[in-house]
Amino acid sequence: MTDRYDQLLDFVRNTEKLKQVYRAVDLSDISRRESSAEHSWHFALMLLLFEKDFPEDFDMLKAVKMAIIHDIVEIESGDVPFFDEEARKNKQAEERKAAKEIFGRLPDDVGKEFLDLFLEFEAEETKEAKFLKAFDRLHPMAMNLASEGSSWKRLGISARQVDEKKRPIMQHSELTLALHEKMFAEAKQRGLLK
Amino acid sequence: MTDRYDQLLDFVRNTEKLKQVYRAVDLSDISRRESSAEHSWHFALMLLLFEKDFPEDFDMLKAVKMAIIHDIVEIESGDVPFFDEEARKNKQAEERKAAKEIFGRLPDDVGKEFLDLFLEFEAEETKEAKFLKAFDRLHPMAMNLASEGSSWKRLGISARQVDEKKRPIMQHSELTLALHEKMFAEAKQRGLLK
Repeated sequence: MTDRYDQLLDFVRNTEKLKQVYRAVDLSDISRRESSAEHSWHFALMLLLFEKDFPEDFDMLKAVKMAIIHDIVEIESGDVPFFDEEARKNKQAEERKAAKEIFGRLPDDVGKEFLDLFLEFEAEETKEAKFLKAFDRLHPMAMNLASEGSSWKRLGISARQVDEKKRPIMQHSELTLALHEKMFAEAKQRGLLK
Repeated sequence: MTDRYDQLLDFVRNTEKLKQVYRAVDLSDISRRESSAEHSWHFALMLLLFEKDFPEDFDMLKAVKMAIIHDIVEIESGDVPFFDEEARKNKQAEERKAAKEIFGRLPDDVGKEFLDLFLEFEAEETKEAKFLKAFDRLHPMAMNLASEGSSWKRLGISARQVDEKKRPIMQHSELTLALHEKMFAEAKQRGLLK
Protein backbone atom coordinates (compact mmCIF):
# COMPACT_ATOMS: atom_id res chain seq x y z
CA MET A 1 0.00 0.00 0.00
CA THR A 2 3.04 2.28 0.24
CA ASP A 3 2.78 3.76 -3.24
CA ARG A 4 -0.99 4.17 -2.96
CA TYR A 5 -0.76 5.99 0.37
CA ASP A 6 2.09 8.16 -0.94
CA GLN A 7 0.01 9.16 -3.95
CA LEU A 8 -3.00 9.97 -1.78
CA LEU A 9 -0.94 11.98 0.72
CA ASP A 10 0.71 13.90 -2.12
CA PHE A 11 -2.76 14.78 -3.36
CA VAL A 12 -3.74 16.04 0.11
CA ARG A 13 -0.66 18.25 0.14
CA ASN A 14 -1.23 19.53 -3.38
CA THR A 15 -4.92 20.38 -2.88
CA GLU A 16 -3.94 22.59 0.05
CA LYS A 17 -3.43 25.22 -2.67
CA LEU A 18 -7.22 25.61 -3.05
CA LYS A 19 -6.98 27.72 0.13
CA GLN A 20 -4.85 30.16 -1.88
CA VAL A 21 -7.39 30.54 -4.70
CA TYR A 22 -9.54 33.57 -3.91
CA ARG A 23 -13.06 34.21 -5.16
CA ALA A 24 -14.91 37.44 -5.94
CA VAL A 25 -16.88 37.48 -2.64
CA ASP A 26 -15.63 38.88 0.65
CA LEU A 27 -15.90 37.41 4.13
CA SER A 28 -18.57 39.11 6.24
CA ASP A 29 -15.96 41.18 8.14
CA ILE A 30 -14.46 42.25 4.75
CA SER A 31 -11.02 41.20 6.05
CA ARG A 32 -10.25 39.28 2.84
CA ARG A 33 -11.79 37.38 -0.07
CA GLU A 34 -13.25 33.93 0.49
CA SER A 35 -11.02 31.06 -0.64
CA SER A 36 -12.37 28.36 -2.95
CA ALA A 37 -11.70 25.81 -0.19
CA GLU A 38 -13.98 27.78 2.16
CA HIS A 39 -16.65 28.06 -0.50
CA SER A 40 -16.50 24.27 -1.04
CA TRP A 41 -17.00 23.65 2.66
CA HIS A 42 -19.90 26.08 2.96
CA PHE A 43 -21.50 24.70 -0.21
CA ALA A 44 -21.33 21.14 1.22
CA LEU A 45 -22.81 22.40 4.50
CA MET A 46 -25.73 23.99 2.62
CA LEU A 47 -26.50 20.59 1.09
CA LEU A 48 -26.63 19.01 4.55
CA LEU A 49 -28.93 21.77 5.77
CA PHE A 50 -31.44 21.28 2.95
CA GLU A 51 -31.15 17.47 2.72
CA LYS A 52 -34.72 16.91 3.89
CA ASP A 53 -35.99 19.30 1.23
CA PHE A 54 -34.40 17.37 -1.67
CA PRO A 55 -36.36 14.70 -3.64
CA GLU A 56 -36.54 11.28 -1.98
CA ASP A 57 -34.26 9.55 -4.49
CA PHE A 58 -31.58 12.26 -4.27
CA ASP A 59 -28.14 10.62 -3.83
CA MET A 60 -26.81 12.66 -0.93
CA LEU A 61 -23.39 11.04 -0.67
CA LYS A 62 -22.69 11.59 -4.36
CA ALA A 63 -23.86 15.20 -4.06
CA VAL A 64 -21.68 15.98 -1.05
CA LYS A 65 -18.68 14.41 -2.79
CA MET A 66 -19.30 16.58 -5.84
CA ALA A 67 -19.46 19.69 -3.67
CA ILE A 68 -16.16 18.82 -1.99
CA ILE A 69 -14.26 18.20 -5.23
CA HIS A 70 -16.04 20.54 -7.69
CA ASP A 71 -13.50 23.39 -7.45
CA ILE A 72 -10.24 21.41 -7.15
CA VAL A 73 -9.53 22.18 -10.82
CA GLU A 74 -9.08 25.84 -9.80
CA ILE A 75 -5.68 24.90 -8.39
CA GLU A 76 -4.61 24.89 -12.03
CA SER A 77 -7.18 27.09 -13.75
CA GLY A 78 -8.03 29.71 -11.07
CA ASP A 79 -11.48 30.98 -10.14
CA VAL A 80 -13.45 32.59 -12.96
CA PRO A 81 -16.00 35.11 -11.61
CA PHE A 82 -19.61 34.32 -12.54
CA PHE A 83 -20.29 37.73 -14.09
CA ASP A 84 -17.07 37.85 -16.18
CA GLU A 85 -18.58 36.64 -19.46
CA GLU A 86 -15.40 37.06 -21.51
CA ALA A 87 -13.30 34.99 -19.11
CA ARG A 88 -15.96 32.29 -18.86
CA LYS A 89 -15.85 31.46 -22.58
CA ASN A 90 -12.91 29.06 -22.29
CA LYS A 91 -13.72 28.00 -18.74
CA GLN A 92 -15.24 24.60 -19.47
CA ALA A 93 -12.50 23.36 -21.80
CA GLU A 94 -9.73 24.58 -19.47
CA GLU A 95 -11.32 23.06 -16.39
CA ARG A 96 -11.82 19.70 -18.08
CA LYS A 97 -8.18 19.67 -19.11
CA ALA A 98 -7.14 20.57 -15.56
CA ALA A 99 -9.43 17.87 -14.12
CA LYS A 100 -7.87 15.15 -16.26
CA GLU A 101 -4.40 16.31 -15.29
CA ILE A 102 -5.02 16.71 -11.54
CA PHE A 103 -7.19 13.63 -10.98
CA GLY A 104 -4.77 11.67 -13.18
CA ARG A 105 -2.22 11.96 -10.37
CA LEU A 106 -4.43 9.80 -8.11
CA PRO A 107 -4.55 5.99 -7.88
CA ASP A 108 -6.71 4.85 -10.84
CA ASP A 109 -9.84 3.95 -8.84
CA VAL A 110 -10.01 7.23 -6.91
CA GLY A 111 -8.93 9.30 -9.92
CA LYS A 112 -11.69 7.83 -12.05
CA GLU A 113 -14.30 8.42 -9.34
CA PHE A 114 -13.29 12.08 -8.92
CA LEU A 115 -13.15 12.75 -12.67
CA ASP A 116 -16.58 11.15 -13.17
CA LEU A 117 -18.04 13.24 -10.33
CA PHE A 118 -16.55 16.41 -11.77
CA LEU A 119 -17.80 15.68 -15.31
CA GLU A 120 -21.28 14.80 -14.02
CA PHE A 121 -21.40 18.09 -12.11
CA GLU A 122 -20.28 20.06 -15.16
CA ALA A 123 -22.71 18.31 -17.53
CA GLU A 124 -25.62 19.48 -15.35
CA GLU A 125 -27.88 16.67 -16.52
CA THR A 126 -28.50 14.49 -13.48
CA LYS A 127 -30.81 15.52 -10.65
CA GLU A 128 -27.88 15.87 -8.26
CA ALA A 129 -25.85 18.01 -10.68
CA LYS A 130 -28.82 20.33 -11.31
CA PHE A 131 -29.33 20.93 -7.59
CA LEU A 132 -25.60 21.44 -7.10
CA LYS A 133 -25.28 23.96 -9.91
CA ALA A 134 -28.13 25.90 -8.30
CA PHE A 135 -26.64 25.75 -4.79
CA ASP A 136 -23.23 26.74 -6.18
CA ARG A 137 -24.95 29.97 -7.34
CA LEU A 138 -27.10 30.42 -4.23
CA HIS A 139 -24.05 30.37 -1.97
CA PRO A 140 -22.48 33.65 -3.24
CA MET A 141 -25.88 35.35 -2.76
CA ALA A 142 -25.81 34.29 0.88
CA MET A 143 -22.23 35.60 1.12
CA ASN A 144 -23.22 38.95 -0.38
CA LEU A 145 -26.13 39.24 2.05
CA ALA A 146 -23.62 38.59 4.85
CA SER A 147 -21.14 41.21 3.62
CA GLU A 148 -23.52 44.08 2.71
CA GLY A 149 -23.21 43.14 -0.97
CA SER A 150 -19.52 44.01 -1.03
CA SER A 151 -18.61 42.09 -4.18
CA TRP A 152 -21.80 43.14 -6.00
CA LYS A 153 -20.96 46.76 -5.21
CA ARG A 154 -17.28 46.41 -6.19
CA LEU A 155 -18.23 44.87 -9.53
CA GLY A 156 -21.26 47.14 -10.07
CA ILE A 157 -23.69 44.21 -10.39
CA SER A 158 -27.33 45.13 -11.03
CA ALA A 159 -30.50 43.45 -9.79
CA ARG A 160 -31.35 42.60 -13.39
CA GLN A 161 -27.99 40.86 -13.94
CA VAL A 162 -28.37 38.70 -10.83
CA ASP A 163 -31.91 37.71 -11.61
CA GLU A 164 -31.46 37.11 -15.34
CA LYS A 165 -28.28 35.08 -14.95
CA LYS A 166 -29.27 33.07 -11.88
CA ARG A 167 -33.01 32.42 -12.27
CA PRO A 168 -32.63 29.91 -15.18
CA ILE A 169 -30.30 27.78 -13.02
CA MET A 170 -32.86 27.80 -10.18
CA GLN A 171 -35.99 27.00 -12.12
CA HIS A 172 -35.72 23.20 -12.14
CA SER A 173 -37.02 22.93 -8.57
CA GLU A 174 -39.37 24.75 -6.22
CA LEU A 175 -36.75 24.66 -3.47
CA THR A 176 -33.98 26.42 -5.37
CA LEU A 177 -36.36 28.93 -6.93
CA ALA A 178 -37.80 29.75 -3.50
CA LEU A 179 -34.32 30.27 -2.02
CA HIS A 180 -33.29 32.45 -4.96
CA GLU A 181 -36.41 34.59 -4.69
CA LYS A 182 -36.08 34.93 -0.95
CA MET A 183 -32.45 36.12 -1.10
CA PHE A 184 -32.98 38.24 -4.22
CA ALA A 185 -35.93 40.04 -2.59
CA GLU A 186 -33.84 40.75 0.52
CA ALA A 187 -30.91 42.04 -1.58
CA LYS A 188 -33.20 44.44 -3.45
CA GLN A 189 -35.00 45.53 -0.31
CA ARG A 190 -31.68 46.30 1.42
CA GLY A 191 -30.41 48.18 -1.66
CA LEU A 192 -27.38 45.93 -2.17
CA LEU A 193 -27.76 45.75 -5.97
CA LYS A 194 -27.57 48.51 -8.56
CA MET B 1 -41.86 26.49 4.40
CA THR B 2 -41.01 30.16 4.81
CA ASP B 3 -39.93 29.97 8.44
CA ARG B 4 -37.95 26.80 7.85
CA TYR B 5 -36.08 28.25 4.88
CA ASP B 6 -35.44 31.48 6.79
CA GLN B 7 -33.96 29.54 9.70
CA LEU B 8 -31.76 27.49 7.37
CA LEU B 9 -30.55 30.55 5.44
CA ASP B 10 -29.79 32.35 8.70
CA PHE B 11 -27.67 29.38 9.69
CA VAL B 12 -25.79 29.54 6.38
CA ARG B 13 -25.07 33.22 7.01
CA ASN B 14 -24.03 32.67 10.61
CA THR B 15 -21.67 29.75 9.89
CA GLU B 16 -19.80 32.00 7.44
CA LYS B 17 -17.92 33.07 10.56
CA LEU B 18 -16.02 29.75 10.61
CA LYS B 19 -13.89 31.31 7.85
CA GLN B 20 -12.77 33.88 10.42
CA VAL B 21 -11.65 31.32 13.00
CA TYR B 22 -7.94 30.72 12.47
CA ARG B 23 -6.01 27.61 13.45
CA ALA B 24 -2.41 27.11 14.52
CA VAL B 25 -1.21 25.87 11.11
CA ASP B 26 -0.15 28.08 8.21
CA LEU B 27 -1.01 27.78 4.54
CA SER B 28 1.85 26.37 2.46
CA ASP B 29 2.83 29.85 1.19
CA ILE B 30 2.83 31.12 4.82
CA SER B 31 0.56 34.00 3.72
CA ARG B 32 -1.80 33.42 6.65
CA ARG B 33 -3.18 30.82 9.06
CA GLU B 34 -5.61 28.20 7.83
CA SER B 35 -9.26 28.87 8.72
CA SER B 36 -11.36 26.22 10.43
CA ALA B 37 -13.67 26.23 7.39
CA GLU B 38 -10.70 25.33 5.16
CA HIS B 39 -9.60 22.62 7.56
CA SER B 40 -13.12 21.15 7.52
CA TRP B 41 -13.12 21.01 3.72
CA HIS B 42 -9.68 19.42 3.53
CA PHE B 43 -10.57 16.94 6.26
CA ALA B 44 -13.71 15.87 4.33
CA LEU B 45 -11.62 15.56 1.15
CA MET B 46 -9.16 13.28 2.96
CA LEU B 47 -12.05 10.97 3.85
CA LEU B 48 -13.08 10.75 0.19
CA LEU B 49 -9.50 9.98 -0.81
CA PHE B 50 -9.18 7.08 1.64
CA GLU B 51 -12.76 5.77 1.31
CA LYS B 52 -11.65 2.50 -0.30
CA ASP B 53 -9.24 1.89 2.57
CA PHE B 54 -11.93 2.11 5.28
CA PRO B 55 -13.72 -1.03 6.59
CA GLU B 56 -16.56 -2.32 4.42
CA ASP B 57 -19.31 -1.34 6.85
CA PHE B 58 -17.99 2.20 7.31
CA ASP B 59 -20.85 4.74 6.97
CA MET B 60 -19.27 7.19 4.59
CA LEU B 61 -22.16 9.68 4.41
CA LYS B 62 -22.30 9.95 8.20
CA ALA B 63 -18.53 10.38 8.34
CA VAL B 64 -18.44 13.14 5.72
CA LYS B 65 -21.29 14.94 7.48
CA MET B 66 -19.37 14.78 10.76
CA ALA B 67 -16.28 16.25 9.10
CA ILE B 68 -18.29 19.12 7.63
CA ILE B 69 -19.97 20.09 10.90
CA HIS B 70 -17.35 19.04 13.51
CA ASP B 71 -15.81 22.51 13.97
CA ILE B 72 -18.92 24.70 13.69
CA VAL B 73 -18.90 25.08 17.49
CA GLU B 74 -15.69 27.11 17.10
CA ILE B 75 -17.83 30.03 15.91
CA GLU B 76 -18.65 30.40 19.60
CA SER B 77 -15.75 28.72 21.38
CA GLY B 78 -12.78 29.40 19.06
CA ASP B 79 -10.08 26.95 17.99
CA VAL B 80 -8.08 25.39 20.81
CA PRO B 81 -4.61 24.31 19.63
CA PHE B 82 -3.91 20.59 20.05
CA PHE B 83 -0.70 21.10 22.04
CA ASP B 84 -2.14 23.72 24.43
CA GLU B 85 -2.92 21.38 27.32
CA GLU B 86 -4.09 24.08 29.71
CA ALA B 87 -6.59 25.53 27.25
CA ARG B 88 -7.88 22.08 26.33
CA LYS B 89 -9.05 21.27 29.86
CA ASN B 90 -12.42 22.99 29.49
CA LYS B 91 -12.68 22.39 25.75
CA GLN B 92 -15.17 19.54 25.79
CA ALA B 93 -17.68 21.14 28.15
CA GLU B 94 -17.51 24.50 26.35
CA GLU B 95 -17.91 22.94 22.94
CA ARG B 96 -20.90 20.88 24.01
CA LYS B 97 -22.56 23.99 25.39
CA ALA B 98 -21.81 25.84 22.14
CA ALA B 99 -23.16 22.91 20.08
CA LYS B 100 -26.48 22.91 21.92
CA GLU B 101 -26.78 26.65 21.50
CA ILE B 102 -25.80 26.83 17.81
CA PHE B 103 -27.62 23.73 16.57
CA GLY B 104 -30.61 24.78 18.67
CA ARG B 105 -31.15 27.64 16.21
CA LEU B 106 -31.95 25.14 13.44
CA PRO B 107 -35.31 23.54 12.61
CA ASP B 108 -35.73 20.67 15.11
CA ASP B 109 -35.03 17.80 12.70
CA VAL B 110 -31.80 19.25 11.29
CA GLY B 111 -30.69 20.58 14.68
CA LYS B 112 -31.08 17.16 16.27
CA GLU B 113 -29.17 15.48 13.43
CA PHE B 114 -26.25 17.93 13.69
CA LEU B 115 -26.08 17.73 17.48
CA ASP B 116 -26.13 13.92 17.39
CA LEU B 117 -23.36 13.88 14.76
CA PHE B 118 -21.27 16.28 16.84
CA LEU B 119 -21.76 14.31 20.08
CA GLU B 120 -20.98 11.02 18.32
CA PHE B 121 -17.77 12.52 16.94
CA GLU B 122 -16.76 13.85 20.36
CA ALA B 123 -17.55 10.58 22.18
CA GLU B 124 -15.08 8.77 19.91
CA GLU B 125 -16.77 5.42 20.39
CA THR B 126 -18.18 4.46 17.01
CA LYS B 127 -15.99 3.22 14.18
CA GLU B 128 -16.67 6.37 12.17
CA ALA B 129 -15.84 8.67 15.08
CA LYS B 130 -12.55 6.85 15.76
CA PHE B 131 -11.43 7.20 12.14
CA LEU B 132 -12.48 10.83 12.11
CA LYS B 133 -10.63 11.72 15.30
CA ALA B 134 -7.52 10.18 13.73
CA PHE B 135 -7.93 12.00 10.41
CA ASP B 136 -8.60 15.26 12.28
CA ARG B 137 -5.09 14.82 13.75
CA LEU B 138 -3.47 13.56 10.55
CA HIS B 139 -4.57 16.64 8.63
CA PRO B 140 -2.38 19.17 10.53
CA MET B 141 0.61 16.85 10.00
CA ALA B 142 -0.02 17.05 6.25
CA MET B 143 -0.30 20.85 6.58
CA ASN B 144 2.99 21.06 8.47
CA LEU B 145 4.71 18.94 5.85
CA ALA B 146 3.34 21.38 3.23
CA SER B 147 4.56 24.48 5.11
CA GLU B 148 8.05 23.34 6.21
CA GLY B 149 6.72 22.67 9.70
CA SER B 150 5.93 26.34 10.26
CA SER B 151 3.51 25.90 13.16
CA TRP B 152 5.62 23.15 14.78
CA LYS B 153 8.60 25.51 14.65
CA ARG B 154 6.67 28.53 15.93
CA LEU B 155 5.32 26.54 18.89
CA GLY B 156 8.60 24.62 19.46
CA ILE B 157 6.94 21.20 19.07
CA SER B 158 9.23 18.20 19.48
CA ALA B 159 9.16 14.84 17.68
CA ARG B 160 8.39 13.16 20.99
CA GLN B 161 5.37 15.41 21.62
CA VAL B 162 3.87 14.69 18.20
CA ASP B 163 4.39 10.97 18.45
CA GLU B 164 3.28 10.57 22.08
CA LYS B 165 0.15 12.67 21.69
CA LYS B 166 -0.94 11.46 18.26
CA ARG B 167 0.00 7.76 18.16
CA PRO B 168 -2.71 6.64 20.67
CA ILE B 169 -5.39 8.23 18.45
CA MET B 170 -4.00 6.36 15.40
CA GLN B 171 -3.61 2.91 16.86
CA HIS B 172 -7.17 1.64 16.33
CA SER B 173 -6.50 0.90 12.65
CA GLU B 174 -3.65 -0.13 10.39
CA LEU B 175 -4.54 2.62 7.95
CA THR B 176 -4.32 5.55 10.36
CA LEU B 177 -1.21 4.16 12.04
CA ALA B 178 0.49 3.72 8.65
CA LEU B 179 -0.36 7.29 7.63
CA HIS B 180 0.88 8.65 10.96
CA GLU B 181 4.15 6.73 10.71
CA LYS B 182 4.71 7.76 7.14
CA MET B 183 4.23 11.48 7.82
CA PHE B 184 6.04 11.38 11.16
CA ALA B 185 9.07 9.70 9.53
CA GLU B 186 9.15 12.35 6.81
CA ALA B 187 8.88 15.18 9.36
CA LYS B 188 11.82 13.79 11.35
CA GLN B 189 13.88 13.09 8.25
CA ARG B 190 13.37 16.67 7.02
CA GLY B 191 14.21 18.09 10.45
CA LEU B 192 10.85 19.85 10.90
CA LEU B 193 10.47 18.83 14.57
CA LYS B 194 12.62 19.72 17.56
